[in-house]
Amino acid sequence: MAFKIGLLGLGTVGQGTAAILLDREGRHPLLKEIELVRVGVRSLSKSRTIALPENLLTTDLEAIVTDPEIDIVVELIGGVEPARSLILKAIDHGKHIVTANKALISRHGAEIFSAANQKGVYVLLEAAVGGGIPVIQPMKECLGANRINTVMGIVNGTTNYILTRMQAEAANFDEVLQQAQELGYAEADPTADVDGLDAADKIAILASLAFGERIKLEQVYCEGIRGISATDIDYADRLGFTIKLLAIASRSLESDTDNISVRVHPTLVPKLHPLASINGVNNAIFIEGEPIGQVMFFGPGAGAGPTASAVVSDILNIAGIITTTNTPHGLAESAHPLMTCTHQHYCELAPIEELITRFYARFITRDLPGVIGKLGTCFGNHEVSIESIVQIDTHGKQAEIVVVTHDVREGNFRAALDELKHMDIVDRFPSLLRVL
Amino acid sequence: MAFKIGLLGLGTVGQGTAAILLDREGRHPLLKEIELVRVGVRSLSKSRTIALPENLLTTDLEAIVTDPEIDIVVELIGGVEPARSLILKAIDHGKHIVTANKALISRHGAEIFSAANQKGVYVLLEAAVGGGIPVIQPMKECLGANRINTVMGIVNGTTNYILTRMQAEAANFDEVLQQAQELGYAEADPTADVDGLDAADKIAILASLAFGERIKLEQVYCEGIRGISATDIDYADRLGFTIKLLAIASRSLESDTDNISVRVHPTLVPKLHPLASINGVNNAIFIEGEPIGQVMFFGPGAGAGPTASAVVSDILNIAGIITTTNTPHGLAESAHPLMTCTHQHYCELAPIEELITRFYARFITRDLPGVIGKLGTCFGNHEVSIESIVQIDTHGKQAEIVVVTHDVREGNFRAALDELKHMDIVDRFPSLLRVL
Repeated sequence: MAFKIGLLGLGTVGQGTAAILLDREGRHPLLKEIELVRVGVRSLSKSRTIALPENLLTTDLEAIVTDPEIDIVVELIGGVEPARSLILKAIDHGKHIVTANKALISRHGAEIFSAANQKGVYVLLEAAVGGGIPVIQPMKECLGANRINTVMGIVNGTTNYILTRMQAEAANFDEVLQQAQELGYAEADPTADVDGLDAADKIAILASLAFGERIKLEQVYCEGIRGISATDIDYADRLGFTIKLLAIASRSLESDTDNISVRVHPTLVPKLHPLASINGVNNAIFIEGEPIGQVMFFGPGAGAGPTASAVVSDILNIAGIITTTNTPHGLAESAHPLMTCTHQHYCELAPIEELITRFYARFITRDLPGVIGKLGTCFGNHEVSIESIVQIDTHGKQAEIVVVTHDVREGNFRAALDELKHMDIVDRFPSLLRVL
Repeated sequence: MAFKIGLLGLGTVGQGTAAILLDREGRHPLLKEIELVRVGVRSLSKSRTIALPENLLTTDLEAIVTDPEIDIVVELIGGVEPARSLILKAIDHGKHIVTANKALISRHGAEIFSAANQKGVYVLLEAAVGGGIPVIQPMKECLGANRINTVMGIVNGTTNYILTRMQAEAANFDEVLQQAQELGYAEADPTADVDGLDAADKIAILASLAFGERIKLEQVYCEGIRGISATDIDYADRLGFTIKLLAIASRSLESDTDNISVRVHPTLVPKLHPLASINGVNNAIFIEGEPIGQVMFFGPGAGAGPTASAVVSDILNIAGIITTTNTPHGLAESAHPLMTCTHQHYCELAPIEELITRFYARFITRDLPGVIGKLGTCFGNHEVSIESIVQIDTHGKQAEIVVVTHDVREGNFRAALDELKHMDIVDRFPSLLRVL
């Protein structure tokens, strides 16, 4: 039995995928059963580094997803449309799907997986999170014995590159972003990366796998790294922390009702935590569960080769299961229960005000006696327990004060800040960061 | 369809496994289809912390592996016999196997997998390497797109615990070993751990998966940590390295014939390498391939809970594939090609003399002018290129000299050492370590 692949999109990852499928020696022997038969692109004339066999390219993407010869459609176009419509049509025509499209799955996963389950086809998406790092499949197939309480990670290479350089060079955000753009590590429009939207897509997918519930993307709290300054990185460093953009999904197993929180925000990570030393464009996903304890997966979070490795791994897994069942398509009633997505329900995420976390906050205040006392009293009135208040520096008539709290309810901390805003001692608070 | 499990062995991991199977709420829903029906032990009267339902325990292990009701036999006895005979008999009776037994698989894998393939049953062994860390299945099912050139890791928690404490406390091996034994981190007879034998079993299994060849365990080069001194840890630290017991399988993809090297030895790891910061009883497995680049899996390398997580993950995977194929046993001709072990050939490992590596060596020499020159000349005569020779210290009429080489052929380096032994300037060389 040979498996015929139709590829949609021939960008960086598409070319990486085609390169593997056209150079199969020394890889898994099952690859020899897999044949790339069509590649759908927007323009035939665009120059590309990869040399494809003749007649593979077409601009007729509809023809690929409806081609009766094709078993697996690999969607590497990205974005919501036309990817969504093409995938749904491919499913309707009984094709299995491999995709790297986190934006699509985090928004329309329910629709796509429902259609796939009904049709008895698989939708695999290893490449959607963590580039080449195996994480989706390990979560689906290696951690089922566990009650997962936390999945968190560094899932956006661009922001981690920027923060790593800011840390190494004591540089500010704007200058490093500009250099990252020049080097191709950041897009011309960096919004999706630096504002945390890409990380939000990914953690929504991971949270769904970890907790077996569908996640409403619009409920994922999302805060990017534009506000991080060299000053905060320096202060965090002195306090024993590294600032990372973490995507975090956590569930309180103690409370009566599951309390699921999914969020993306810059975070002070203790230097000894495994996530603190993940630098540059690398990604890492950290999972905590009972009884496994803590495990972490680390590797390249992007790039043609790594991401294509994940895409082809999904292709191999679909080919493997079809070989085993001896039917071209999994029967709906006997699809592999670890490979399918059977989440039925959307869960309500806890609002960010209900989060219990530690905070780091930097204040610029008037340099007067009694300021620290007033700060402390205000926090105390809102049940915000302080670990430390340190006056770091004075600038003329102003003082710079850094507060680190114990675990507090975020809503209480914000209420205290609101009150402080209206007191004449606090000039402004340029930074408000959560501590892991 | 429900799956009936027979468990052999109720030690630490056995109890952890039973605990999961008896408390299934909040884990993967497929677990509800899985029932623990028999537990084979040596003694019924031994007191155990776990409370099992009545009539599960038996001392008749043969009866479990031949019980027609049982679908999956989980072997957690350890050691070669009777585990080997029981597993072979279970396979002969059409049972799928889950095992954590690295000693058995590294020695008798060929026999066991051949029997399993013939019978159309699966033998899964996630728990055999890296405790709870998903690594075997990711290697089998997530990295197939790659040409793997290196798998290496910290795969023995006991030795990593000892080295971590030696490093932190500038303590010597013997005292830390004794404390580790008192704390239960090392066995009364620590040979298998501290001499690298346990790590050798594990890297033989990983090498086999990485390169698709069978490994002859007796060809795996194995050197433990008894010779590591506080002095070497200190010097390594000053040079920018941490000493770790690494298990390494590497393949040169450049040479005409594959040149596979599998070995266990203490290694100077650059402090910025991800493996350098894996401390205590944790394990980590680092994999390098084309096109994925470098990925690492990190987590608890032992313990009842983590290891049981891996065991139950294997049970779930077998249940999943049986559900999908709708047959109690995979047909031999259509077994899942990523779940089976189909290696046919033993490969010849390169002898350690052919290894190309950097060395760190510490010499006690006579404190005379010209010693460094003579050392350098001798190395040069054997084509050993030196990166640095530093006289660290003098003790009376003796000098302590540390040599770090560039990449050299190990055979050449040893020949140089042999020659030095016979020169009257070198008193002894207490340490000879490889550098990553």
